[in-house]
Amino acid sequence: MRAAMYNGPGEIAVEEVPKPALDSPRGALIRVTHTAICGSDLWFYRGESDRETGSAVGHEPMGIVEETGTDVTSLKPGDRVFAPFVISCGRCEFCRRGLHTSCTNGGSWGGENGGGQGEYVRVPEADGTLVRVPDRYANDEETLKSILPLTDVMGTGHHAAVNAGVGEGDTCVVVGDGAVGLCGVLAARRLGAKQIVAMGHHEDRLSLAAEFGATETVAERGEAGVKRARELTGGGTDHVLECVGAASAMETAIDICRPGGTVGYVGVPHGVEEAGLDVFSLFSDNISLCGGVAPVRAYADDLLADVLDGTLDPSPIFTKTVDLDGVSEGYRAMDEREEIKVLVRIDDHSE
Amino acid sequence: MRAAMYNGPGEIAVEEVPKPALDSPRGALIRVTHTAICGSDLWFYRGESDRETGSAVGHEPMGIVEETGTDVTSLKPGDRVFAPFVISCGRCEFCRRGLHTSCTNGGSWGGENGGGQGEYVRVPEADGTLVRVPDRYANDEETLKSILPLTDVMGTGHHAAVNAGVGEGDTCVVVGDGAVGLCGVLAARRLGAKQIVAMGHHEDRLSLAAEFGATETVAERGEAGVKRARELTGGGTDHVLECVGAASAMETAIDICRPGGTVGYVGVPHGVEEAGLDVFSLFSDNISLCGGVAPVRAYADDLLADVLDGTLDPSPIFTKTVDLDGVSEGYRAMDEREEIKVLVRIDDHSE
Repeated sequence: MRAAMYNGPGEIAVEEVPKPALDSPRGALIRVTHTAICGSDLWFYRGESDRETGSAVGHEPMGIVEETGTDVTSLKPGDRVFAPFVISCGRCEFCRRGLHTSCTNGGSWGGENGGGQGEYVRVPEADGTLVRVPDRYANDEETLKSILPLTDVMGTGHHAAVNAGVGEGDTCVVVGDGAVGLCGVLAARRLGAKQIVAMGHHEDRLSLAAEFGATETVAERGEAGVKRARELTGGGTDHVLECVGAASAMETAIDICRPGGTVGYVGVPHGVEEAGLDVFSLFSDNISLCGGVAPVRAYADDLLADVLDGTLDPSPIFTKTVDLDGVSEGYRAMDEREEIKVLVRIDDHSE
Repeated sequence: MRAAMYNGPGEIAVEEVPKPALDSPRGALIRVTHTAICGSDLWFYRGESDRETGSAVGHEPMGIVEETGTDVTSLKPGDRVFAPFVISCGRCEFCRRGLHTSCTNGGSWGGENGGGQGEYVRVPEADGTLVRVPDRYANDEETLKSILPLTDVMGTGHHAAVNAGVGEGDTCVVVGDGAVGLCGVLAARRLGAKQIVAMGHHEDRLSLAAEFGATETVAERGEAGVKRARELTGGGTDHVLECVGAASAMETAIDICRPGGTVGYVGVPHGVEEAGLDVFSLFSDNISLCGGVAPVRAYADDLLADVLDGTLDPSPIFTKTVDLDGVSEGYRAMDEREEIKVLVRIDDHSE
């Protein structure tokens, strides 16, 4: 089969690789039809995080079940499914608690499972990982495009909102205008927030944030941005969604948070390792820091219901669609911030 | 009047200083009869944190109301009262939310208010700050000794337990066997925890932790301590009370916390400024970090009720009592860890 591989910073190439083979009774083989490029993929692409060269990339697969193991009960070949960025069993303590990212039988894409940006992936725990799309929507391209973000960024933005404690009538601030931040705006609106201030540095993305439900946007950087957000929220808000992961974004989030409030953070920590977080800034104001890597499987069913109801549609975050051969160009376009998020549509599975 | 003053690292001296004067209609003047030395006082005493030389020390006053301003409604001269380590108005947004440490009209001891380790203090916001002890207990020395920790450490330990989310039937780990950690054990027991693992490095303090309700104690340091606590709790617990503030204690707390759990922290961050907190250790396991400087005023009424009921007694943390002239010796004894916490009994107020 053909799959996108990482060959070093800036080098993504589609190569012929062995098709994953089903090897466990709880597994399934998926023919990938839709996938995406993630902001977190850019870190190894830029050489800012380590990744083995020659490794398969991608972690947001959607497709058709081709084969299932003998113990799989909830799926059958031909079903339309999507998978979160983490593989989870659905049975262990953590999955039962909705913390699928800490699954004791979990795993990740790549390696022998295949990467999400390839023609096939193997899912070792099919029942626990895969989410089935009802048949009536299984081939509706527009609906599938709206569902695809549930593999990662929509669930991640939602995790930020949930961890920030956003509820009916609340005021919140979303730090970051990337795909996750934009989904955070959608999530905050969905949870009933009355005032949603979106912060970012790109006018086009902030416009989309406003379409998604942001009541105000803040484009200023650094201190000026903090000042503006605090003004708009009457001196800071109890609910801040940190959707970037950079140390500077975390500082901004804490500076905007009202004493006794909560920063819900989901951005993969980046640059924080070197500097570390200044706990004192949290301590003196009793600001809670909640969140982490999003267990998007836990949220998938509820979010899917809303997408199918037509009340939730994150699809505008996809500003470009490429085919498998276009994945490398997709990385480049996202890296240079030409695009918010790139959808990869894999039609041809000739072997 | 006479008051303990900080004259540089290791130098605490009782000096003759001007008696504070009542200068606001909402204020009160308190004749201090009982006060204490705090673990957090040791940091300037050791020269590890900055403090102006020639400044009055102490922040845990209990005494008798000597004079009240014209607007004070809840107190009258002769009342037995105690005060938290932070002055709060009781009226502002944050006081109403129970976050008295972020009071917009708040203040601290020292300066023109006088320090808690002196014969008199002025309370600019008497109704909002002071807690009245019912008359029938006003001169009961044993009861007063049990109440005095409510000025700081008992409320602080309780804040850790509340922020760690400890509830009925829970398992929790308390990191630290100082006065705050010991009070954290009491608080966890009071909130219904079934298993309470106390961690520290002093056998005598861990014995007291066991008396206070710890079901197990862990004296091992570093990795060995983490391993033991994780074993005792079946692989880590959802509720960790970090009651030290040192960077190493915070790391221990995070290492013991179960994925999806919460570290409730109340120790003044210390050493964390340099190293910073490794956010990644929280991120990957979705561990929440909640807490901060404890709004002990918010908890004082409830905790006082339990002390007066006889169901809560933190007084064993006071392992030594000195008079005002003994304050310097009290600092030394606490600094050298001869004593857990020193009570200062001020009898004579000859002027």
